[in-house]
Amino acid sequence: MLIDKTVTGFIEELASNSPAPGGGSAAALAGSLGAALTTMVCNFTEGKPKFSDVQDEIVQIKGKGLTLKSDLVKYIDEDTNAFNEVMKAYKLPKESDEEKAIRSEKIQEANKQASLLPLKVAEACVEVLKLSIRVLTIGNPNTACDAAVSGVTAYAGFQGAIFNVKINLSSIKDEAFLHMIKDRVGELQVDADQLNQQILERAKEVIG
Amino acid sequence: MLIDKTVTGFIEELASNSPAPGGGSAAALAGSLGAALTTMVCNFTEGKPKFSDVQDEIVQIKGKGLTLKSDLVKYIDEDTNAFNEVMKAYKLPKESDEEKAIRSEKIQEANKQASLLPLKVAEACVEVLKLSIRVLTIGNPNTACDAAVSGVTAYAGFQGAIFNVKINLSSIKDEAFLHMIKDRVGELQVDADQLNQQILERAKEVIG
Repeated sequence: MLIDKTVTGFIEELASNSPAPGGGSAAALAGSLGAALTTMVCNFTEGKPKFSDVQDEIVQIKGKGLTLKSDLVKYIDEDTNAFNEVMKAYKLPKESDEEKAIRSEKIQEANKQASLLPLKVAEACVEVLKLSIRVLTIGNPNTACDAAVSGVTAYAGFQGAIFNVKINLSSIKDEAFLHMIKDRVGELQVDADQLNQQILERAKEVIG
Repeated sequence: MLIDKTVTGFIEELASNSPAPGGGSAAALAGSLGAALTTMVCNFTEGKPKFSDVQDEIVQIKGKGLTLKSDLVKYIDEDTNAFNEVMKAYKLPKESDEEKAIRSEKIQEANKQASLLPLKVAEACVEVLKLSIRVLTIGNPNTACDAAVSGVTAYAGFQGAIFNVKINLSSIKDEAFLHMIKDRVGELQVDADQLNQQILERAKEVIG
């Protein structure tokens, strides 16, 4: 699995001449960094008398952050797997009419999954952004920088995931599916842009 | 070393209750993803007759991308080391006047290094952004998505690094040093914002 490689090994694999992992897995990893950093800030805020009035929310954020971190780490490999399924479908035989029909159906199915997976990454990154703005606002100020970095890495994960959703949509013929995904992308984009803006403004206040 | 940990191990360490690694190392890792992805796009463009007119530039970009990737991967650990030196300086004895003077000097020195290191990360990320816009423009369109993700991850790396530069400046008293760093941050910010904007516009044209 990609996530069992060393950091150096993963980066080398990403840079290599193999088609996967690519931007999709990199986006999921960027989102994972964001989720991990929200949890880090919670660890420096939880149980400190100075921040006693926000303990309940911090405990909640930490729980959500840990779940999002696990999900996003899992998506690093799942994105590459989804991409490999698309490649596999394109390699199916296409001699007979029956083979052509099966191949075409498998390509459609694989592309749908390869759009849905980065959509999950994008959704998780928006959830991370919601935690980032909160930890940047109520978390231990000694970790304000980590909170701000959680925001920018999660936003990069979101943007990267959306590129991957869109690129896979280009091969899909199912109009209802396309419509549904495009609507969802539009909603997420509005949320992500707003949250990113809030995080940058707050970071400017806190960090300079 | 952090970069010898598995991807999962690094993320766990980042999320943990230890002060390092934190946002600085995460920013360097985000930048590394960007550099690696520019190299990936070059690998899918180099040597293909279809892109024969851009071969020279692609070879140049690949060389630069590989160097930036190595540098940014190295900075993942160096940022954490620089942070640890700051922590060590604050723990120096402060009983006698002499001890106080030595401690104060070491704190200043460590904070300068802890500003200069993320500044190097930010500079490297701007260089990655310059490569990202080129590979998104002239690279194999099959890897347009990877080129676009290289841009957003490098920009996140830049932003994260700048947060880290600024947070460490707050403890530095040397006005000439502060002035020099702030000027450089201002220049880099203009370049990074422009490149990011160009990359997003180009990604919109190519990906949708």
